[in-house]
Amino acid sequence: MNRTPVTVIGLGAMGRALAAAFVAAGHPTTVWNRTPGRAVVPGAAHADTAADAVAAGPLVVACLAHYDATTEALADADLTGRSLVTLNSGTPSGARSTAAWATARGARHLDGAIKNVPAAIGAADTQLYYSGDETVYAEHEATLRVLGGDTSWLGAEVDLAKLHEYAVGGTLLPALLGFFQGAALVTARGRTAASLVPHTAKWLAMIASVLPTLADEIDRGEYTDPQSSIGLFHDAVPYDHEVTAEAGLDVAWHEPMHDLLRRAVARGHRDHSIAALVELLREPA
Amino acid sequence: MNRTPVTVIGLGAMGRALAAAFVAAGHPTTVWNRTPGRAVVPGAAHADTAADAVAAGPLVVACLAHYDATTEALADADLTGRSLVTLNSGTPSGARSTAAWATARGARHLDGAIKNVPAAIGAADTQLYYSGDETVYAEHEATLRVLGGDTSWLGAEVDLAKLHEYAVGGTLLPALLGFFQGAALVTARGRTAASLVPHTAKWLAMIASVLPTLADEIDRGEYTDPQSSIGLFHDAVPYDHEVTAEAGLDVAWHEPMHDLLRRAVARGHRDHSIAALVELLREPA
Repeated sequence: MNRTPVTVIGLGAMGRALAAAFVAAGHPTTVWNRTPGRAVVPGAAHADTAADAVAAGPLVVACLAHYDATTEALADADLTGRSLVTLNSGTPSGARSTAAWATARGARHLDGAIKNVPAAIGAADTQLYYSGDETVYAEHEATLRVLGGDTSWLGAEVDLAKLHEYAVGGTLLPALLGFFQGAALVTARGRTAASLVPHTAKWLAMIASVLPTLADEIDRGEYTDPQSSIGLFHDAVPYDHEVTAEAGLDVAWHEPMHDLLRRAVARGHRDHSIAALVELLREPA
Repeated sequence: MNRTPVTVIGLGAMGRALAAAFVAAGHPTTVWNRTPGRAVVPGAAHADTAADAVAAGPLVVACLAHYDATTEALADADLTGRSLVTLNSGTPSGARSTAAWATARGARHLDGAIKNVPAAIGAADTQLYYSGDETVYAEHEATLRVLGGDTSWLGAEVDLAKLHEYAVGGTLLPALLGFFQGAALVTARGRTAASLVPHTAKWLAMIASVLPTLADEIDRGEYTDPQSSIGLFHDAVPYDHEVTAEAGLDVAWHEPMHDLLRRAVARGHRDHSIAALVELLREPA
């Protein structure tokens, strides 16, 4: 066993999961948290200062609340020659400024995004995206794969991981709200939300199956698939109103989506594929 | 070969697909369309009137634009003893009134919802929901399964199929908009929408995997899973604004979703699971 020593900075729910996964995989693991003693990771060395933690090894994984917390926590650490991997939440611009900050301090920097919950850390199908310094990814890919088997490097532009996190993750809240709305509908009729799950799971798989066609239309700029025309969605809006009104639900969150459909029809997209909505989303409000 | 004769009323894109599937499966198939000669289904008998088409066999599948079009088209047909299966778009209330209409005319009535596009008709994983007269479903299940292998009867209340169509299908537009938004983000950086597809497909599978937990919380009315807390979603809203503003995108459709998060936090749901949003959706606007 000759595993790379790893330092984990920040022991929130996600940071603890990361550290525990490194420990479980046999990596000598040093951890540090702003509030001492609040979080304990069995099998890890708990450093008194962030500087001590960084001094413990070549690979530093930071999982704090945001980029500012990361640069603040590491302000007194010597990052020279270190590989800094930031796995906090944040924006593409935050990744860019942190990369500049880390590079100026002699570190190589890789930014990442974890597309799952802490309990999924370590699973074979847990996705993590990385972008930034390719040499860091190449040297430490096997170690990083401890955190999730579905790990990919998106490119040298350090903000790509966060950009992809938004581009992919932006489906979550609307899809969940769609499910909750459906749960509100069926539970109002005395059925369980659980009874809806197999149907919705299949439906999400169906949606996934049409994405290649829709993406191809977007990439060609030609929205020619008539099977999912904007007109079909547009003409179903009154049904949506009737069904939700009968159930007494608040569907205010549907209105701007319906407005997109109305604007798309007004612009002549009625017979175009629903993918043509991307044209409207590309326009500043 | 002793297949049940089937009548298909309405030859739009979906009606043609239904009729073609019955023909392909060896069912003697009679079709009728309001505009004669506009649509031809090879292998089917084309009746001159809806009444003639209905007279051709025991099972009548209607796939017109809506329920009113169905009752109008069948006004002069003798429905006595017929099994009428309505597969048009519409609302639960439309299904109820059509069932009353059909029953008064001596027919047994089953309502259905097709959860896919015409090209998917006949596939093993194509979902159709039915509700209404169970004897119709029991007698004709094998014939109906010709249209899609994933066929289920939801119950005797005839509006359940349409209710489920909304409850399940309501995830489609928001999920697609989430993907289009992501496509707008990555294409603004010179990457293809196609490059996003494998990531989003996995993401949709991840969403499907958490539905049982969320549904269980909804059914218990206890939103205790801290891994996907409303606070996490709420606190990411400023990031959403920054990312989309940097890309110059119109994200007006996000605002009411963010408003739901803000209202949920204001009510003390910060540390509750995102599933608690169902409580807000249940309240009339």
